[in-house]
Amino acid sequence: MPPEVRVIGIQGMPEVREGDDLAAQLIDAAEEQGTAIDDGDVIVVTQKIVSKTEGRVISIEGVEASPLAIAITEGHRRDPRHTELILRESRRIVRMDRGVILSETYHGFNCANAGIDASNIPGSNTVALLPVDPDASARRIRDAVKERLGVDVAVIISDTFGRPWRNAAVNVAIGVAGFNPLLSYVGQEDAHGNMMFTTVICVADELAAMAELVTGKVDGVPVSIIKGYEYEPMENATHEDLLRSPDKDLFR
Amino acid sequence: MPPEVRVIGIQGMPEVREGDDLAAQLIDAAEEQGTAIDDGDVIVVTQKIVSKTEGRVISIEGVEASPLAIAITEGHRRDPRHTELILRESRRIVRMDRGVILSETYHGFNCANAGIDASNIPGSNTVALLPVDPDASARRIRDAVKERLGVDVAVIISDTFGRPWRNAAVNVAIGVAGFNPLLSYVGQEDAHGNMMFTTVICVADELAAMAELVTGKVDGVPVSIIKGYEYEPMENATHEDLLRSPDKDLFR
Repeated sequence: MPPEVRVIGIQGMPEVREGDDLAAQLIDAAEEQGTAIDDGDVIVVTQKIVSKTEGRVISIEGVEASPLAIAITEGHRRDPRHTELILRESRRIVRMDRGVILSETYHGFNCANAGIDASNIPGSNTVALLPVDPDASARRIRDAVKERLGVDVAVIISDTFGRPWRNAAVNVAIGVAGFNPLLSYVGQEDAHGNMMFTTVICVADELAAMAELVTGKVDGVPVSIIKGYEYEPMENATHEDLLRSPDKDLFR
Repeated sequence: MPPEVRVIGIQGMPEVREGDDLAAQLIDAAEEQGTAIDDGDVIVVTQKIVSKTEGRVISIEGVEASPLAIAITEGHRRDPRHTELILRESRRIVRMDRGVILSETYHGFNCANAGIDASNIPGSNTVALLPVDPDASARRIRDAVKERLGVDVAVIISDTFGRPWRNAAVNVAIGVAGFNPLLSYVGQEDAHGNMMFTTVICVADELAAMAELVTGKVDGVPVSIIKGYEYEPMENATHEDLLRSPDKDLFR
């Protein structure tokens, strides 16, 4: 059989609220539409719905903007209190230009506005912050699926990040559970007997990218299930493996 | 029906040589394994096989290394003649550090070693350069499929690039034909009536990433077919749309 990988969007998820049991909801929604969750599947969950259930959608009303946040925002469309939250979620400012703040979040992700945004959430003064610990978010879903359905799955929490040099944004993994997010060919030979010295593929990001093709941005499909991809199981998966180490990064 | 997108690897491609009719070969191989090529499919072809058929696999034997190439390579594993080719394929050096040359190719791609590498090609002194015009490579395949099978497809030429900040490499698009590589949500409202101001997704890169999950690196599966993704048809697709314009790029 030729290799085949497919991704199926899970429709009919309810509008989630803080404290909701996201794992139970996605299992129910998958069952409702007749999509089985099987051993070896990869469940990809978009960051926004995770942030919502974890109480990370907050109002900027009670936030006090620092003088720096006010100065940064001067002349730009963003509310200074929103900017204040970006600074609080960051551990390093990478670039700041024309209203764009590119920072490293305390998780270690380099992204615009510390991953905070205001789309797909109700209310005009609310914003969604990234989950505090996206790996833990992924593990909770993996554990719940194991407990309720008795199957082993991998889980990815995904978000859409821009990147240097290439236009527009793509979906990437920000939290992982149950699998090795990297696939290394180091030491393997290609079909011609050449050693492949340095190739490591970030399969977690490729799986997240694939998922975006069905979850999109406006369709209310925040969860998808990937079937047919043979990942390498790993109990202690961590988003740290997704981050280039500073000493190998020419663009800090 | 829930949204579903799938990718099928095409096995049994012959070891291609310069001048081979790549389009005919991939159509034959797909037919041989019983995978139909239908209207609206996306065919993803890895760069290496394209470079091989276009005569872009060359020996470094006849290359004369410049003093700069020799100086750059000093103390590193690479052959200075290989370095010379990297310089010739580049229009700008972005970073040079510990033997890694990150340059902008004359196509405008920012990548390590101008996209030149030595894996998956026969011979120890041969290297594969990127196709001269990957969009034209993609168009030729699209046109041949249209002519022989009477169906409209999108075509992506893909390669695996590293990126700043995030670990390891992912597959991206370097040539496109028949579809808009970007999907813009600018001006659309989300489910809560919020305007989405700036979201543009590089679906070409997400499709390329998805394809890598079946084509891999060592399996002899250089072509894949994606089914179920509704792209926006575009006659004059170009890889230029994949490049962040210099005035919006904070990392040149």
